[in-house]
Amino acid sequence: MSLKQLCRLTALVLGACCTRAETPAPPRPFGLVVHGGAGVILRADLPAALEAEYRTALQAALDAGYTVLADGGTALDAVLATVCRLEDSPLYNAGRGAVLNADGVCELDAAIMDGRTITAGAIAGVRHIRNPIVLARDVMEKSPHVLLSGAGAEQFATSLGYTLVPNEYFQTERRKAQLQQARDAEAKGRPAAGMPGGLRRQPAAGALVLDERKFGTVGCVALDRAGNLAAGTSTGGMTNKKFGRVGDSPIIGAGTYANNRTCAVSATGHGEYFIRAVVAYDIAARMEYLHRPLAAAAAETIARVGALGGTGGVIALDARGNIAMPFNTPGMYRGCKLSTGEDRIELFEPGR
Amino acid sequence: MSLKQLCRLTALVLGACCTRAETPAPPRPFGLVVHGGAGVILRADLPAALEAEYRTALQAALDAGYTVLADGGTALDAVLATVCRLEDSPLYNAGRGAVLNADGVCELDAAIMDGRTITAGAIAGVRHIRNPIVLARDVMEKSPHVLLSGAGAEQFATSLGYTLVPNEYFQTERRKAQLQQARDAEAKGRPAAGMPGGLRRQPAAGALVLDERKFGTVGCVALDRAGNLAAGTSTGGMTNKKFGRVGDSPIIGAGTYANNRTCAVSATGHGEYFIRAVVAYDIAARMEYLHRPLAAAAAETIARVGALGGTGGVIALDARGNIAMPFNTPGMYRGCKLSTGEDRIELFEPGR
Repeated sequence: MSLKQLCRLTALVLGACCTRAETPAPPRPFGLVVHGGAGVILRADLPAALEAEYRTALQAALDAGYTVLADGGTALDAVLATVCRLEDSPLYNAGRGAVLNADGVCELDAAIMDGRTITAGAIAGVRHIRNPIVLARDVMEKSPHVLLSGAGAEQFATSLGYTLVPNEYFQTERRKAQLQQARDAEAKGRPAAGMPGGLRRQPAAGALVLDERKFGTVGCVALDRAGNLAAGTSTGGMTNKKFGRVGDSPIIGAGTYANNRTCAVSATGHGEYFIRAVVAYDIAARMEYLHRPLAAAAAETIARVGALGGTGGVIALDARGNIAMPFNTPGMYRGCKLSTGEDRIELFEPGR
Repeated sequence: MSLKQLCRLTALVLGACCTRAETPAPPRPFGLVVHGGAGVILRADLPAALEAEYRTALQAALDAGYTVLADGGTALDAVLATVCRLEDSPLYNAGRGAVLNADGVCELDAAIMDGRTITAGAIAGVRHIRNPIVLARDVMEKSPHVLLSGAGAEQFATSLGYTLVPNEYFQTERRKAQLQQARDAEAKGRPAAGMPGGLRRQPAAGALVLDERKFGTVGCVALDRAGNLAAGTSTGGMTNKKFGRVGDSPIIGAGTYANNRTCAVSATGHGEYFIRAVVAYDIAARMEYLHRPLAAAAAETIARVGALGGTGGVIALDARGNIAMPFNTPGMYRGCKLSTGEDRIELFEPGR
């Protein structure tokens, strides 16, 4: 018998032994993590009834994605189901209920990434797409591109048969009041107290600085039964934003990233810092190159954002079902639902 | 004498010795690297007269940046001087001479990053900014934002006193002919032979795929006498591009990145793959986390792009003056000019 034949025989015997093994493999973990934005989210500021509404909407979004996963669906489909729920909710700054820009219009950004194929799709500055995350996925799957912007992205949607919705669909009274507050504050040369994500003029340089009260982006990361990861993020950006500003949400590597080799990440926060720190990919790189566990990698990256002066947080999930939800703001709307039974929503800092 | 006192005394003596040392410190290296796009650049296809024109324009751009550095200017100013020269040249796909989109219009993207402050500025889809790289720098220095897009970016320019130029300023007869070729090829359902960066319809999925003949983005990375790094990239994108497509050039971490801790990178190639592979930041991460030398890190990242199916290249420079210019296409317009005396332009694969 040649060495080659011996090797083949050994492989056959081993294969047969494995097939006959009685011990079943432990079930693969699956589940998802969601966020609804980070910022100054304090128990004292949030009436109980409103807090209940935020929790209910987050739970419904988690449940929608979890059902997809439990039924054997893909991480990508779960991310889509969860993010669509949050886009449809008027409470969160994505889709319906998004913040208004300086022209009183909602301008929406979104991105999605498939960790299995390392493909991605994103859109920036659309005004008439009911569920931006759905269009981001179509960019990924039905175009050769990753990022489409503005009216061009909407032309692409139309070419696929989308019905455009009027911008008024997204606009809520609450966001109109916030824009007015931001405008009033800007006129007075100071940020409005309690005004989420407004802009004010920086007296020294004549430039604009942000009032970092709250970043209402939504996002989801999911792991399916097949071991595939996906990430998605959707946002209306910042109240009173000007000049076609694009934040980190639709930037692959900054606000959104997924790769089965490492992790899936969705970020929320002061987007400019998250772009400069290449946040989502930095977490993956720390896992791949430094062999850091997910939680340590995510915490280190958020610390780096903090060192630059930025605030916000991320949700992250690896292929083993480990999760991380670090943030350096007083709160972050967040939650997870996992096949291990873990199922929770949190809004404030731990212990507060 | 206590141990502490002994230590202090030793430090003082050593300090005095160092101050009195006669050997001057070796001069800090400085210099810059430039690219004018990667792709199917073959000696056989390039008439000698045209080759000379490409070389002359690259050399003039290198010289402009080098003069800034030699005079003690910053890496940022050198990048600006070099990229502006290439934007002004009708030969390269950036600024004047940029490729035309499907509507017959030039739509320009650019980004710049300062490795000293880890700040960045970028613009996407502008049509009336003579030197997009200059506006990218103004976004970095005069706004709180990183990325501005479309008409909004031009409003920001106007607010700073920019004069908008008509789009015809950018359009050249050569690019109009290329667009016509691309349109004819698209109408016939196949890519035009020799047509740079065109689009064609993919019969199977009804989506669009690229004809990857040549990616004409320009970029520059520089190291100044103070040891600071900077990177800049400017492009017209792809001939016949549709739907507000944005490539990797204005995406911090993908087409452009700089950090004194690691390196400065500018990419050129099939942008969608460069976004998915987070190319520029991946090189920096390999240096920081794996302690890889610049050339190895850059080569490994380009290999990863290739494994995804993408083509293109990067120029990279670290704080010690090491350079790398890897690409996986048949050619890349590239060159460097360093304080060590190295001064060269190359267009083709080594040895061809």
